[in-house]
Amino acid sequence: MIAELRETVAVLHRELTRYGLVSWTAGNVSARVPGEDLMVIKPSGVSYDELGPDAMVVTDLHGTLVDGALSPSSDTAAHAYVYRHLPDVGGVAHTHSPYATAWAARGEPIPCVLTMIADEFGGDIPVGPFALIGDDSIGRGIVDTLRGSRSPAVLMRNHGPFTVGQDARAAVKAAVLLEDVARTVHFAHQLGTPETIEARHVDHLYTRYQNVYGQ
Amino acid sequence: MIAELRETVAVLHRELTRYGLVSWTAGNVSARVPGEDLMVIKPSGVSYDELGPDAMVVTDLHGTLVDGALSPSSDTAAHAYVYRHLPDVGGVAHTHSPYATAWAARGEPIPCVLTMIADEFGGDIPVGPFALIGDDSIGRGIVDTLRGSRSPAVLMRNHGPFTVGQDARAAVKAAVLLEDVARTVHFAHQLGTPETIEARHVDHLYTRYQNVYGQ
Amino acid sequence: MIAELRETVAVLHRELTRYGLVSWTAGNVSARVPGEDLMVIKPSGVSYDELGPDAMVVTDLHGTLVDGALSPSSDTAAHAYVYRHLPDVGGVAHTHSPYATAWAARGEPIPCVLTMIADEFGGDIPVGPFALIGDDSIGRGIVDTLRGSRSPAVLMRNHGPFTVGQDARAAVKAAVLLEDVARTVHFAHQLGTPETIEARHVDHLYTRYQNVYGQ
Amino acid sequence: MIAELRETVAVLHRELTRYGLVSWTAGNVSARVPGEDLMVIKPSGVSYDELGPDAMVVTDLHGTLVDGALSPSSDTAAHAYVYRHLPDVGGVAHTHSPYATAWAARGEPIPCVLTMIADEFGGDIPVGPFALIGDDSIGRGIVDTLRGSRSPAVLMRNHGPFTVGQDARAAVKAAVLLEDVARTVHFAHQLGTPETIEARHVDHLYTRYQNVYGQ
Repeated sequence: MIAELRETVAVLHRELTRYGLVSWTAGNVSARVPGEDLMVIKPSGVSYDELGPDAMVVTDLHGTLVDGALSPSSDTAAHAYVYRHLPDVGGVAHTHSPYATAWAARGEPIPCVLTMIADEFGGDIPVGPFALIGDDSIGRGIVDTLRGSRSPAVLMRNHGPFTVGQDARAAVKAAVLLEDVARTVHFAHQLGTPETIEARHVDHLYTRYQNVYGQ
Repeated sequence: MIAELRETVAVLHRELTRYGLVSWTAGNVSARVPGEDLMVIKPSGVSYDELGPDAMVVTDLHGTLVDGALSPSSDTAAHAYVYRHLPDVGGVAHTHSPYATAWAARGEPIPCVLTMIADEFGGDIPVGPFALIGDDSIGRGIVDTLRGSRSPAVLMRNHGPFTVGQDARAAVKAAVLLEDVARTVHFAHQLGTPETIEARHVDHLYTRYQNVYGQ
Repeated sequence: MIAELRETVAVLHRELTRYGLVSWTAGNVSARVPGEDLMVIKPSGVSYDELGPDAMVVTDLHGTLVDGALSPSSDTAAHAYVYRHLPDVGGVAHTHSPYATAWAARGEPIPCVLTMIADEFGGDIPVGPFALIGDDSIGRGIVDTLRGSRSPAVLMRNHGPFTVGQDARAAVKAAVLLEDVARTVHFAHQLGTPETIEARHVDHLYTRYQNVYGQ
Repeated sequence: MIAELRETVAVLHRELTRYGLVSWTAGNVSARVPGEDLMVIKPSGVSYDELGPDAMVVTDLHGTLVDGALSPSSDTAAHAYVYRHLPDVGGVAHTHSPYATAWAARGEPIPCVLTMIADEFGGDIPVGPFALIGDDSIGRGIVDTLRGSRSPAVLMRNHGPFTVGQDARAAVKAAVLLEDVARTVHFAHQLGTPETIEARHVDHLYTRYQNVYGQ
């Protein structure tokens, strides 16, 4: 199981570079090990070209290294906090993707003006607090914000987005779609004001997409 | 014939990723099977890396699965409606390409201020209604809008573009050129106002491009 | 010589896609055949994936096909006019690169506010007239505009840029650098006003770059 | 040692193209040869496809060619000046990356409104003077500006960024992260005003990142 998750998490990091969500060694993905108080996460400051399965590290849900030759991501404490407090979450992704981070820098939620936002995020994409790295502040900010929303994404002020999902793939999907809609709504606002979508239509779209889309 | 169309439609999906028109599994292309009430379309929610010919599905023109192991695209009903009501259309493409979708989100047609718009779209690129997924609303919105225009593209409000063509390749070409011109006109508007092209020049360009360009 | 130019021109087309200057089959590069009233140019409406040396066509300097299985680019008349009237020009490139075309759509020259513009273009990058395809109008607009400028690039109104050079490689280089500076100056203007460069500094930079840069 | 640095510097140039920081042959990276008054630098005007280790040149710290078949970069004098005056610098990178250069063209520092800016740059990213190529003006402008800042990056007016680091890899990292933050802050400003980060938080982030991040 852990070997499989190392492979999954390693491969999912390629989606971050494919979609231009990360630069250099920034950004990270983790997966909860089902049924255990463990997670698999990216090591700190390693090039995306070298992120094979063996480079991934295993920590407990307080971020203590359990297996792996490298130091875990500097955001490990935030991932761990999310897993401890949101039991349905099986994967977490973090990037500084440029359009989403620009909304975060202004502290503005992304308004639900696209069917894709209704589908995946179920409403406006919320802003989380400014939080310093080094203790549970970032994790607490993520969890407190996501608890009040259907959105799997939170825009942490002056920092960037964190996304969650039932597994690591779903968290990465949310990170990819987040940047897509952050960009499109940015463009829409540059030349005017996008039209709103009525709340009942947002509900219809969200329910359908969550239950009918895919295989 | 169907085997060939599976191959064609599969290959055309690569153009959507090549030009950055789609994220994750969003977007879809279909082709009418000439002389039959059938179409070949992308399956729902499958990664673009796995969209080989065998993954494509065949449905009738009401979206009922006829051949294929996977569920058809969630936009199948819209494609089917187009084929039922526009007999000259042999291909349909749908994306959420960012610049075109930004115009759609504001409900603004793209003005015909570039020779490339006159060539391919024959005038302003029109906006279609807001329509919910789940019945014929999207298909009807596409058909009603395209009937009043020379444009092979319609910007569905709060959603994104649909394009049509005599075959699937022409529909994908329209999707690619649409995003190109949506972006350029967006840029032009950001710093001022683009100059207009006289209607008679638009007609001249459209007629020539439709009849003389290419092999 | 012609075989070599077919190879050169074919390879240079890859730079247009590498830098995102063209979509689908739009854009074209040509090279004058030194010492002969001939040129090598891209065929019309052929995919960039299929632009090997054999696909290139040879025409005289009035655009009449001399060698090749395909119809020449629909912009052949404009290239031919340039070669007939500017004897020092050995290569021509044409794209609809998005930022340069946005300046063209507004009919605004790109101001010389970057050392790279001074280096390569020697001053502001000028705007040419609106001209319809089908006769010598485009060619004449290019030549008349370039004669009054050190710039190897002209922004044809509502259409896009044409660039020239002593050979095809130099023309493509100008097309690449043009889009680069069109984009950067666009960005600079979005949030304020770029500082100007004094005319004597522009001259210094231009002279040095044209004579000292490179091998 | 010099053979290794030729390899390192050659490989690092690929990061400039990977992240879209350079066009055509613009941009350059150099590395100081530890313990010697020498540096390894890119040749002038050579295509990025041909920048293998053998193409790199070795000069002394006044820019005089010591080893290599090609002429050194036209920015060699600036790199050499930096190495002579900043003994802790082991690598220098120069690009015209579009967002950073847009800030440079306006002569505006990039404000420290992102945790990534605090981490890597330790505060606002400063602007250097307008300086002509051909003597020590550019080098002096870089050194004078960097001496008053924790930032490894300086935005040279109307020109583009130079970055430094303890080795060439660190200088290239700074160039990559600079463009990333220049872009995100550009986006943030386009639709409003980003929130500031308190100076004590900037200090906390900078100290932690410089000491704890990575392996």
